[in-house]
Amino acid sequence: MNLNTINNCPGDSRFFKKSAPIALEQIIGTSEAKFVPAYNGRDKSFDLMGIAPLQSATQNEVSFLDNKRYIDLLSQTKAGLIIVSPAFADKIPHHSHALVTKNPYLEWARIASLFYPKSSVQAGIHSSACIDSTAQIDDEVEIQEFVVIKANVKIGKGSIIGSHTVIEQGVEIGENCRIGSHVSLSCAILGNRITLYPGVRIGQDGFGFAISEHGFLSVPQIGKVILKDDVEIGSNSTIDRGSVRDTVIGEGSRIDNLVQIGHNVQMGKCCIVVAQAGISGSTRLEDFVTIAAQAGLIGHIHIGEHARIGAQCGVMSDIDAKSDVIGSPAMPFREFFRNVAFLRRLVKSSSKEKE
Amino acid sequence: MNLNTINNCPGDSRFFKKSAPIALEQIIGTSEAKFVPAYNGRDKSFDLMGIAPLQSATQNEVSFLDNKRYIDLLSQTKAGLIIVSPAFADKIPHHSHALVTKNPYLEWARIASLFYPKSSVQAGIHSSACIDSTAQIDDEVEIQEFVVIKANVKIGKGSIIGSHTVIEQGVEIGENCRIGSHVSLSCAILGNRITLYPGVRIGQDGFGFAISEHGFLSVPQIGKVILKDDVEIGSNSTIDRGSVRDTVIGEGSRIDNLVQIGHNVQMGKCCIVVAQAGISGSTRLEDFVTIAAQAGLIGHIHIGEHARIGAQCGVMSDIDAKSDVIGSPAMPFREFFRNVAFLRRLVKSSSKEKE
Amino acid sequence: MNLNTINNCPGDSRFFKKSAPIALEQIIGTSEAKFVPAYNGRDKSFDLMGIAPLQSATQNEVSFLDNKRYIDLLSQTKAGLIIVSPAFADKIPHHSHALVTKNPYLEWARIASLFYPKSSVQAGIHSSACIDSTAQIDDEVEIQEFVVIKANVKIGKGSIIGSHTVIEQGVEIGENCRIGSHVSLSCAILGNRITLYPGVRIGQDGFGFAISEHGFLSVPQIGKVILKDDVEIGSNSTIDRGSVRDTVIGEGSRIDNLVQIGHNVQMGKCCIVVAQAGISGSTRLEDFVTIAAQAGLIGHIHIGEHARIGAQCGVMSDIDAKSDVIGSPAMPFREFFRNVAFLRRLVKSSSKEKE
Repeated sequence: MNLNTINNCPGDSRFFKKSAPIALEQIIGTSEAKFVPAYNGRDKSFDLMGIAPLQSATQNEVSFLDNKRYIDLLSQTKAGLIIVSPAFADKIPHHSHALVTKNPYLEWARIASLFYPKSSVQAGIHSSACIDSTAQIDDEVEIQEFVVIKANVKIGKGSIIGSHTVIEQGVEIGENCRIGSHVSLSCAILGNRITLYPGVRIGQDGFGFAISEHGFLSVPQIGKVILKDDVEIGSNSTIDRGSVRDTVIGEGSRIDNLVQIGHNVQMGKCCIVVAQAGISGSTRLEDFVTIAAQAGLIGHIHIGEHARIGAQCGVMSDIDAKSDVIGSPAMPFREFFRNVAFLRRLVKSSSKEKE
Repeated sequence: MNLNTINNCPGDSRFFKKSAPIALEQIIGTSEAKFVPAYNGRDKSFDLMGIAPLQSATQNEVSFLDNKRYIDLLSQTKAGLIIVSPAFADKIPHHSHALVTKNPYLEWARIASLFYPKSSVQAGIHSSACIDSTAQIDDEVEIQEFVVIKANVKIGKGSIIGSHTVIEQGVEIGENCRIGSHVSLSCAILGNRITLYPGVRIGQDGFGFAISEHGFLSVPQIGKVILKDDVEIGSNSTIDRGSVRDTVIGEGSRIDNLVQIGHNVQMGKCCIVVAQAGISGSTRLEDFVTIAAQAGLIGHIHIGEHARIGAQCGVMSDIDAKSDVIGSPAMPFREFFRNVAFLRRLVKSSSKEKE
Repeated sequence: MNLNTINNCPGDSRFFKKSAPIALEQIIGTSEAKFVPAYNGRDKSFDLMGIAPLQSATQNEVSFLDNKRYIDLLSQTKAGLIIVSPAFADKIPHHSHALVTKNPYLEWARIASLFYPKSSVQAGIHSSACIDSTAQIDDEVEIQEFVVIKANVKIGKGSIIGSHTVIEQGVEIGENCRIGSHVSLSCAILGNRITLYPGVRIGQDGFGFAISEHGFLSVPQIGKVILKDDVEIGSNSTIDRGSVRDTVIGEGSRIDNLVQIGHNVQMGKCCIVVAQAGISGSTRLEDFVTIAAQAGLIGHIHIGEHARIGAQCGVMSDIDAKSDVIGSPAMPFREFFRNVAFLRRLVKSSSKEKE
């Protein structure tokens, strides 16, 4: 049935509302990239109708090349405007205009957002929502179906609360936040422009208990979770509240899906934590730290500014600023791959000796 | 209290509705396995009442042996009918009939499904559900409590939508699907006979953003998620929608719990992805690929047909068809275990030298 | 906006209700630890107002030291009462009373719970909940917004069911349980004093299917999940029901966030499973087993009493009682770290030879 109707083009109108046309000259005019007109002399006073990958872009669409893995696509594209780095500028087809910039992906993000702006707020509270009478909700907030909002919650202007989300007592949410469906929020203070994807769990008890002869005794967890401005948290990720101080996620940090953040973790600004990574309790990350997928950090350690932790890395001790580590236990990237190559050669030569 | 009433037999009637009795001859008649009558001459015109493990099965129940780890249980069982592979056929007790087949687990699946057929649809929409007036829902669909269905959603005949599930605008669901409770579905097209377990998140934004001096800028994600016929997705797994093309899960593929699938991933048919594995963006899997638990694949790579990726494997480059790999970075199974053994010997002999 | 109002002290009154004051003499009187009065002669007949970390505690607050990493804070604290181990007893500042005990964290848990007792039940069923008429719910149960309770469910005295939780047919829940929001419960029997955090999925089908030439065939999963008394399960964790017997979590065991437990797993009492770990089907854990974060266990193996499995460990075979293992494949702690150090030395000396 419906699989016959699949349209593999981006921007399927069943799901996405496009803001088009946009004049090419308007896009050029607002860009900091260098404009290089088409070698075939094509006029630049025409309208662009949208964005598309190199393979399917038409002469009225914008495309980009960021990854040299896909460079062969450049010669074949029909795109009317292409965003590229200087390294590929001489490979642009003659019929395409170009924007040349050191950070093509950033320019792509900017232009794509012109065609697909963030959804706007439909202010109002759905009649099925349960809102405590003491909650302070700005008039320009959208509250969707079956939302539960408990006592003394505050929600700022321009925020959207998705269906079925539960906001427990005292939680404060800033302005222009996007809270997805099925989110659980407790003991938390959120800044502005925060995005939480569906199924995020924020503010539940940390994994804290004392061990006695008779079993385990829970330790009351009386800290909060603080999400600073512009933080994003991916689907089904979990962030526990602090035990005696707060769990803090710094400005602009981005956390992917299925990530675990333990109690008392302090994360600086603009950190990146990729899917299924985990950070144990009381560990501190300075600004601009990157943690790749499935990496794990033990508790009570310190990660310096701009450090990069590789995928599946097991970090058992402090990491210096600007270090690149991988492996379990974590070691410098170069050391890890040297060890791997060394062991491979050693085993091979040893097998040959036996022959 | 209620723990005293625990009944450790399978098929507890509080939870499961059994279709019984079924005549032994009917089960034999519909089987492609070889029937071997009981050596003690027991008649085959009797009814079977259900299924059970070897330990507890009675003379009116079916059981099976699949794993040679449990072969000792075979001599002790009272089961009336046993499904086994040819290798164990001479170990069947004298009082048991047998079905002998190269794939006993498949035969077990078939027979167990006769006793415990899939739950049937209770057509109708629960009065608490919020359904947009533009949604096209077949009359023979079951919509449970507090479901939210937004504009232009389509749902085909015979499908069940579990409590609290949210289906965002434009999503299409085929026939005979089983969507569990608390599921979030957006920007997605689903085929027929698809099963989504509770808490699955489909179609949210991928982890895509550009890095500027001032922080991160989100890239609009304008692809979809396409789940082809017979796909199953386990609890709390997350599948992000494509960025400029679609994320696709091929026919019959099975994904376990807490799995992460990044944007633009293309998965072939009959792939298996075990719990807590993760596949990064734009990676392509051909048909019949198996990914074991907690394995991780980086983005933009290609995995050939019938490749098998071991548990906790870290895959950083393309994998050939029919390869078996494990380790981090991934290497052939044999190499991995040879390296492990080699290193162990080397360390041991080196310690001895020092003594 | 609200970020300016952040109060980094523990026990923020927006979220936590404190039971204070409590007389110091009452706390001493109920403690099994040794009381050591302040060297400066401060009277002990005063009231304590709460708990705090060493850095911020006042003379009317309790604090503790557990981790020698933080010992420098001891000399600077103003806390009126400090809980410490005998090793640090001589470092207590002159103005502080002390409780000296071999297990300071346990004493901390006890005293903190006096100030922050568990939330009490607000008996009653919210008007928005959908409760089947055959459900047996004790009068002293709290049922929150949009809860769904299906046929023949039983819930014991003193339990709280959080908003949006779905309890499928036949499930039984004991007394004094705390079921969080957005939980899915099916085919399960729960003991007393059980805590499930938001988004937990219990009792869905295990990952069981037979492989045929034409694709996969699901095997009916007809076991249950049994959670014994005092079990806790962290946010978004998933526990599949048994295939032909039950999945069992033993008394007092604690499972952290995002953990996967496969079908038929048998876990003894007082086990600990840290975040993002996974246990494959039919594996058995004896009592007091600890599994650290992101570890993975294959199926059908046996883990002896008091064994400890390190973070990211890959366990592929049985583990003896009281063993400490780490690495993938798992090996004794000492061997793992010896191998790591050995390989590092070997590579280093080999590089030097080449120079």
